[in-house]
Amino acid sequence: MDRKEGKYLYEEIQDIILELVKKGELKAGEKVPSLRSMSKKLNTSVTTVMKAYMELERKGFLESRPKSGYFLKDAEVKTLPLPDATTPIPEPNPVSKFDLVLQLYYSMGSRDSVCLNVAEPHFELVPSDELARIMKKAISSTPNHNAYEFMGGQPELKRQIAYHMLSYNTRVQPDRMMITNGSSEALFIALTILARPGDSVIVESPCFFGYLNTLHALGIYALEIPTHPDKGMDLDALEQSLNRYDVKACITQTNFNNPLGYSIPPENRDRIVEMCSKSGVPIIEEDIYGDLPHDGKRPDTLLSRDYDNVIYISSFSKTLAPGYRVGWLYSERYYTPIFRYKTSTTVDTVRPTQLAIAEFMASGKYARHLEKFRNVCASNVSLFSMAISKYFPEGTRITRPKGGFILWVELPKGVDTLNIYRRAAHERIHIAPGTIFSSQDRYSNCMRLNCAVPWNERTESALKRLGELGKAEIAGK
Amino acid sequence: MDRKEGKYLYEEIQDIILELVKKGELKAGEKVPSLRSMSKKLNTSVTTVMKAYMELERKGFLESRPKSGYFLKDAEVKTLPLPDATTPIPEPNPVSKFDLVLQLYYSMGSRDSVCLNVAEPHFELVPSDELARIMKKAISSTPNHNAYEFMGGQPELKRQIAYHMLSYNTRVQPDRMMITNGSSEALFIALTILARPGDSVIVESPCFFGYLNTLHALGIYALEIPTHPDKGMDLDALEQSLNRYDVKACITQTNFNNPLGYSIPPENRDRIVEMCSKSGVPIIEEDIYGDLPHDGKRPDTLLSRDYDNVIYISSFSKTLAPGYRVGWLYSERYYTPIFRYKTSTTVDTVRPTQLAIAEFMASGKYARHLEKFRNVCASNVSLFSMAISKYFPEGTRITRPKGGFILWVELPKGVDTLNIYRRAAHERIHIAPGTIFSSQDRYSNCMRLNCAVPWNERTESALKRLGELGKAEIAGK
Repeated sequence: MDRKEGKYLYEEIQDIILELVKKGELKAGEKVPSLRSMSKKLNTSVTTVMKAYMELERKGFLESRPKSGYFLKDAEVKTLPLPDATTPIPEPNPVSKFDLVLQLYYSMGSRDSVCLNVAEPHFELVPSDELARIMKKAISSTPNHNAYEFMGGQPELKRQIAYHMLSYNTRVQPDRMMITNGSSEALFIALTILARPGDSVIVESPCFFGYLNTLHALGIYALEIPTHPDKGMDLDALEQSLNRYDVKACITQTNFNNPLGYSIPPENRDRIVEMCSKSGVPIIEEDIYGDLPHDGKRPDTLLSRDYDNVIYISSFSKTLAPGYRVGWLYSERYYTPIFRYKTSTTVDTVRPTQLAIAEFMASGKYARHLEKFRNVCASNVSLFSMAISKYFPEGTRITRPKGGFILWVELPKGVDTLNIYRRAAHERIHIAPGTIFSSQDRYSNCMRLNCAVPWNERTESALKRLGELGKAEIAGK
Repeated sequence: MDRKEGKYLYEEIQDIILELVKKGELKAGEKVPSLRSMSKKLNTSVTTVMKAYMELERKGFLESRPKSGYFLKDAEVKTLPLPDATTPIPEPNPVSKFDLVLQLYYSMGSRDSVCLNVAEPHFELVPSDELARIMKKAISSTPNHNAYEFMGGQPELKRQIAYHMLSYNTRVQPDRMMITNGSSEALFIALTILARPGDSVIVESPCFFGYLNTLHALGIYALEIPTHPDKGMDLDALEQSLNRYDVKACITQTNFNNPLGYSIPPENRDRIVEMCSKSGVPIIEEDIYGDLPHDGKRPDTLLSRDYDNVIYISSFSKTLAPGYRVGWLYSERYYTPIFRYKTSTTVDTVRPTQLAIAEFMASGKYARHLEKFRNVCASNVSLFSMAISKYFPEGTRITRPKGGFILWVELPKGVDTLNIYRRAAHERIHIAPGTIFSSQDRYSNCMRLNCAVPWNERTESALKRLGELGKAEIAGK
């Protein structure tokens, strides 16, 4: 079923049910509102509502119990344990595995695959049509929509972002903000300013493979810190590394980390900021998933704790429009070198997409979209988790992200997810193998899955198939 | 007078006259078609045509002579001599003057100025509205217009570019092409692959200040070659430098060079390609003005002479849409490192603008636009040259570009264009001072002017004012 302009009834019902979950009025495994009460609420016939409930059952969102009605599906998720804290060797390490990352990028081309490899919200899950309409309006009302933007980005967009950031207690000056080609360019610029080839930079372990890709390109060493899947970097290990090595920066994804999904607890945030400041090590905080808390409570930032030592980067690629390439970089201390560096690389960021996002925010649509998309993320992460617990081999562990749409799956020791990655790719199912999330020889039994794809039989079959490939790996040993 | 959807009669008449010039049927200073014949041709009244002729006279395009009719204005342009060949010291030189370049970028913000500093076609001179319509169509018909593009760029755009390049005898494989955020990113990637900090790279002298900005950011030395304003680099100097120094690349703007305007003669192209190949020095050829020959004859490329050793870069920023940030990079030898480097910096290029340009090309609109815009460039360069010969101090020299829209003006020795630059900026007239076009202490009596702005009284007044400031400089010595 295509999702077009209108909203299907089953989606509307799903929203209503998720809203109840959010309010704490309904829990997984409990009975959802009856057909009759829902038909009254929506002013439509019981038969129509029943069809929608059946569709939601087919999608694995509800389950029907004979003579009892419909229940919110939950199942065995809660029984799968969290992965243990990781144990990388916290020493500077050169980055390799470049070719694998390239393979991953090359395999992204085919749109007819089940793409669980890239962290990209599927276009059907974000308001792509509405965004297109806004873009049309924005370029129509801007005669020079195709001119250079200059000055570090579209001024209204910078104001809108600053206003949005206030909602999570982070107060920035728009004229110290640089709009970038996604957060990847922001990270690249920040690293280029802070470190030189041969220098070392702290990262979480595992960390987003794109970080390692950039470190490799710049000849910078990765110093990986042991990390807990529920609260982030081990603070003792961080402190020791800061004391022992001359590191040039500390990169962290504070909120709904990629790949582990944690949000760093407030007291740990305080400690990280304090330790880095004391050691004179700037923090690069990436916050691209922060707008997607499953419980609707937007966490704050390290930047709000230290406007001098924290370089903040984010983008709209995970929440709205990956292909618009609109991200931003904020640093009060480094604004001038950032501006200088931007003028000597890509010079300027695309104008029409900046105009569109500024208008999307100004009209209040971005805030409304986030409300909805958070629920989709929560629901999909839950559906993925259920399927994994059902189909994957015994001994599998998964993370429990409180936001975003990324799951990290740890299979039993000895399973090589590179084999699964390769075999699945032949069947047009794409995953990100764990090994590329470290500069060390680690996480070969892990994989990262993007849950921001439409949940349907095809997606569920893909997870089932991945589970089978996992079991076959174990049987083959 | 605003230029909107429709075409004003005077523009239509200007096109007809320029067409005659192009065909060699009319020369500057000669009588243009009579009012009567033009009114017949356009099927409109003599009075209406006369109004248009008067408008063209007001714009400095025609001049009326009592009892003789209207003549194509030419005037004293031809009497202004070309600048001499330049004489930089052809030795590796570190790049500084960064702050001046930054000042220039900062001063680009205000749209209510006369901006002759940036090499940007004014949005009224390119079909901005038509492009907006095409973009709307393109994003409407692409449900996932906001998704990541990946794979080095939008496939249809790459095919269209490859097809377009065939028109100038340059045959490329679309799957070896990388779409970039303008040609600036293309240059940045190429240099990062070829050279490391402390290495040297050959550039023309003067050269586009953006090159020097990028060399500075990468810590690469500039080796400036003496350059003739009519045929480019001095080949003997080039050969000596290639023999004497370990240079990592040679950057050249073959066609309608920025800032000097020359197009390298065919025999020199052969020699450059041969010498660099023999020395094992890759050529980075930038061809962003090549589509804008004033006589309609699109020159070929160095790439067409050596597909192995030439890295070709170009963009749509000078011909159509600066703010779309769509450029490209082509190299058969370096495609894999280019892809690798792109994935570790900006990862991906904006999708909607790629879709729009692909559609603009596929519909034949780009080719038709170029036909028209070339004439606008020719006409504006001519009008600027006339005004300069009229208003600038005695002893001024200017280039005679055969394409593009850039003029290089050399004032008498002793004049410091930095003073003119600063004083003019206070009056909201912006120019690019000559000194930033070299890593050495040169060209302080030169300035670069962007002629791709609407020609009107305000533009002419700005040139008059610049001439006065030049004269004041001389008087003040």
